[in-house]
Amino acid sequence: MTISDFTEAELIARIQHNLPFPPDWLLVGIGDDAAVVQPERNRAEVFSVDALVDGVHFDRAFVPPDAIGHRALAVNLSDLAAMGAQPRLALLSMALPPRLPIADFDQIVLGFSRLALEHRVHLAGGNLTRTPGPLLIDVTVVGSVKRRQALTRKGARPGDELYVSGTIGGAAAGRQALQTGRPVDGLPMASCARQYLYPEPRVRAGVMLARNRAVRACVDLSDGLADAVHQIARASSTGAVVEAGLLPLPPPARDWFHAQGLDPAVAAVSGGDDYELLVAVAPRHGRRFNAVAARAGVSFTRIGACTDGHDVVIRSSAHGGAFDAPLTHTGYVHFR
Amino acid sequence: MTISDFTEAELIARIQHNLPFPPDWLLVGIGDDAAVVQPERNRAEVFSVDALVDGVHFDRAFVPPDAIGHRALAVNLSDLAAMGAQPRLALLSMALPPRLPIADFDQIVLGFSRLALEHRVHLAGGNLTRTPGPLLIDVTVVGSVKRRQALTRKGARPGDELYVSGTIGGAAAGRQALQTGRPVDGLPMASCARQYLYPEPRVRAGVMLARNRAVRACVDLSDGLADAVHQIARASSTGAVVEAGLLPLPPPARDWFHAQGLDPAVAAVSGGDDYELLVAVAPRHGRRFNAVAARAGVSFTRIGACTDGHDVVIRSSAHGGAFDAPLTHTGYVHFR
Repeated sequence: MTISDFTEAELIARIQHNLPFPPDWLLVGIGDDAAVVQPERNRAEVFSVDALVDGVHFDRAFVPPDAIGHRALAVNLSDLAAMGAQPRLALLSMALPPRLPIADFDQIVLGFSRLALEHRVHLAGGNLTRTPGPLLIDVTVVGSVKRRQALTRKGARPGDELYVSGTIGGAAAGRQALQTGRPVDGLPMASCARQYLYPEPRVRAGVMLARNRAVRACVDLSDGLADAVHQIARASSTGAVVEAGLLPLPPPARDWFHAQGLDPAVAAVSGGDDYELLVAVAPRHGRRFNAVAARAGVSFTRIGACTDGHDVVIRSSAHGGAFDAPLTHTGYVHFR
Repeated sequence: MTISDFTEAELIARIQHNLPFPPDWLLVGIGDDAAVVQPERNRAEVFSVDALVDGVHFDRAFVPPDAIGHRALAVNLSDLAAMGAQPRLALLSMALPPRLPIADFDQIVLGFSRLALEHRVHLAGGNLTRTPGPLLIDVTVVGSVKRRQALTRKGARPGDELYVSGTIGGAAAGRQALQTGRPVDGLPMASCARQYLYPEPRVRAGVMLARNRAVRACVDLSDGLADAVHQIARASSTGAVVEAGLLPLPPPARDWFHAQGLDPAVAAVSGGDDYELLVAVAPRHGRRFNAVAARAGVSFTRIGACTDGHDVVIRSSAHGGAFDAPLTHTGYVHFR
């Protein structure tokens, strides 16, 4: 049985089957021309949209369908987290190839719904269409934040310290390992594969950092750490230095990159698919920041600092000296 | 020059070039992880998302790129209109084939922006991705309505009269004429082609009908009039009768369908692509409804009524008698 054996109404019913009871602020949900929602009092609203395309952002050959649904929501929740916003609702728009097995469709929805439930995000509407092309999942998320607490990219100042949540490079290593087609279950790479397939958006950390005004700028790592550092530096009109020796690479990822003949630090900063947060912290807020991060249950690692000027560099230590090189700016790849 | 000659940042800059000065309620716009918006006081928010796929919802062979951009926004504004919501902002998510000419990209954005400006919808964010498949444009729109004024599909009662705005069948006839590949400029079909390419969403009418509580149920015709009648009847637990002789077909469309050997009424109710409103009006509200429609500058035509029971029929008159047939329910086509 594939998608083409079902009507749109039947597919929508399969999605609704997964949903919890609608919250009272959802005045009109799935099934009308549009969703109607009661906004939260005294909060600004935060909107993000992000699409995943088969063959571009994932590959059905090695990404199980529930992971596709999980990632489609996770990448968007990560954007909300980077603004310090509490997620509230999502709209799910899918372009479905007719030959997609219905079991895969159900699993995609399941992966999406599980993560939605975990973060108390309610699916308020969406769109289904067929496509002669690849599977595409486009998710819009809506969250809220107190107006003056929204985290942006532009508040960093020279001297601020840069911290990254969790680890970096694991997802890229996991993706590469999965691409080989060899099973990674139980291997050292299993944890990296999991980081790639089921990223955990840092929603709680983002919300708590915003509420406690513990950081001056924040961005998520969707396009890799190098790009994220450039984003903060450019928006804040600062330079930045990243210290290669401080980067928190998981040991299996480090070993994996070594075995592939890659410099682990370079591979990790340009790898992407880590849905972590990069934040700029004023030196005098260091203690408050550490306390909030600890309460959020997320480890942050200091990886460098914002500097005067506009140069964004990665610093390596060798033979007792320090060597700076431009931090490769992978966010500006050509659009192909 | 095609899309593949540009970076994502350059493409975003080309979009921003078209935008008016951002309104003061847009606290953070394009360029951060997410948009931050100040909600309107004492209004509920209305969300809709709809995707157009090349080869499914339009065909680049005969739809000019500015019309693609126009339609991508229009179909969403039509959904807001059907809820009685005033549109406010949009998010534009595009999956772009690498070989798309940059001139076409610019025209798509131009068509979108022109309609956005006309309805004072501000582009607050979006997403660009490449795709190995067809061009896909997914638009999320956000509007607002007073909580108790939102129009839904479910308030109709037996005896309510059904009215449709504008005309029906013109867009379907125009699409068919364009598909022949013969130029339609200056021909009788030019107006139909225009209805297909540049539909005018009934935003003002929807807002005014909601504000004046002039209708009991409302839906837009995205999937054709027959489907719209079924939507209202099912959601309201009524039947419905549509009188074929009352359907407002533009004369060129009627002639076109005749020339193709089609029954004009049947072709018009199942044709789709008319972004008109279907409303159910309580008989005692007829005068108020007509006054509001006149002030909105939109002609509405009575085409039938809601009935007891659950049958949805189309009634034809011939030889002094009336003949009922089931109204073909094109909304339930299989998903292929």
